[in-house]
Amino acid sequence: MTKKAKINASILIIGNEILSGRTQDTNTSTLATWLNSIGVKVEETRTIPDVEKKIVDTVNHFRSSYDYVFTTGGIGPTHDDITAQSISKAFGIEYEIHKKAFKILKDYYKPGEFNEGRQKMAWMPENANLILNPTSGAPGFNVENVFSLPGVPSILKSMLGGLKNSIVGGEPIKSLTISLRTVESEIAKSLNQVQIDNQDVEIGSYPFFQAGKLGVSIVIRSEDKNKIKVCNSQILKFVKEKKIEVVDR
Amino acid sequence: MTKKAKINASILIIGNEILSGRTQDTNTSTLATWLNSIGVKVEETRTIPDVEKKIVDTVNHFRSSYDYVFTTGGIGPTHDDITAQSISKAFGIEYEIHKKAFKILKDYYKPGEFNEGRQKMAWMPENANLILNPTSGAPGFNVENVFSLPGVPSILKSMLGGLKNSIVGGEPIKSLTISLRTVESEIAKSLNQVQIDNQDVEIGSYPFFQAGKLGVSIVIRSEDKNKIKVCNSQILKFVKEKKIEVVDR
Repeated sequence: MTKKAKINASILIIGNEILSGRTQDTNTSTLATWLNSIGVKVEETRTIPDVEKKIVDTVNHFRSSYDYVFTTGGIGPTHDDITAQSISKAFGIEYEIHKKAFKILKDYYKPGEFNEGRQKMAWMPENANLILNPTSGAPGFNVENVFSLPGVPSILKSMLGGLKNSIVGGEPIKSLTISLRTVESEIAKSLNQVQIDNQDVEIGSYPFFQAGKLGVSIVIRSEDKNKIKVCNSQILKFVKEKKIEVVDR
Repeated sequence: MTKKAKINASILIIGNEILSGRTQDTNTSTLATWLNSIGVKVEETRTIPDVEKKIVDTVNHFRSSYDYVFTTGGIGPTHDDITAQSISKAFGIEYEIHKKAFKILKDYYKPGEFNEGRQKMAWMPENANLILNPTSGAPGFNVENVFSLPGVPSILKSMLGGLKNSIVGGEPIKSLTISLRTVESEIAKSLNQVQIDNQDVEIGSYPFFQAGKLGVSIVIRSEDKNKIKVCNSQILKFVKEKKIEVVDR
């Protein structure tokens, strides 16, 4: 089977704590890096508050616009965890006790400790597929192309392995980084020409500071490693002509 | 003058490098923390690729939906820096050389070093207000309620001081954090009752791991410190009843 060339995804971060600046989101970077490695390109992310209408509207927009949607946050036991009920609404399906999730949670806790708060984590959209959680018991869930994961970074990370078989990616997106001891304005014109000559390759330019010196990293991204090779040669050609030093990073 | 109670903002992160997972965004947290301190609440953030139509559409949606819009990224000298031209399009105004920005940049560089790439950074939406850059010369710009800042975190940070007079906030949003040696499910029901009794206060619950032990931070946020006080007492009441330890974090 030939893999579809471009599979895309969007990420929806649900949580007031990110919007207040109190918590630094790292889940976007974790998810995007992992998705890239299995050939799924993240096209958009949004962070929104714990507000049902906002979650419902964004999930419905995302699931019709992108191949996959990942949500993070809002699946715990407290009053501000409203992702499962909001996703049920988005799909127009029941929000109910998921028997398998209930059993997993009941077995996870000691007898007598499976209280009302914990039972809330078994409430899900009807017939959701579970995403197993090797860290803390409470599973995530998946309805059609929407995958709901927790907000705690270490728990989210531990659940990605179990997702692999549910996500069909395209060709993995490869990337090559060339780091130069220069400033962007020195190479802007030549780099623009390389981009014009290679329109279907993504070429980015990112200034950096390292050990008190300025530099620029050029990142070439494509599913096709030959196209990356062509851009690499064209870039190294002008770098040599301009006598710019290539550095390790 | 009485300050308007709720002033809101949205943040638009422009950049393929965030979507690929290569770069960890920290500007959201920097901007959100600063905006909170001057009484502006961030309601939404989006990260989108360096694609003109996407930037134009999102800026137009944001500027009509929120009091303030902040964009980060895409204002450098290379081909992938298309924020200024996109914002000109969003407003339907000219994209042209900004005389004052041109002079600032010309004075910043040594004679003969103000090349074509650097001159690109003087191209802006017509009549834009400049946002001065004490770190690296090239100014950001502001059109109506949209403020465009660079993507490099240290440069963005250095420019916020100069923005203060352009942003009129409401009452600063205050917050109080109570950290407890417990798990969310133990307090979920009682905390929900506090939220029901104080609907206009934002109460969040966030699990943490510290020195091998589990805990929960409850964050109470409001413009009104008396309302925070009321919630605090109600929470400490059930915490005492449940014999839960309050911890420092």
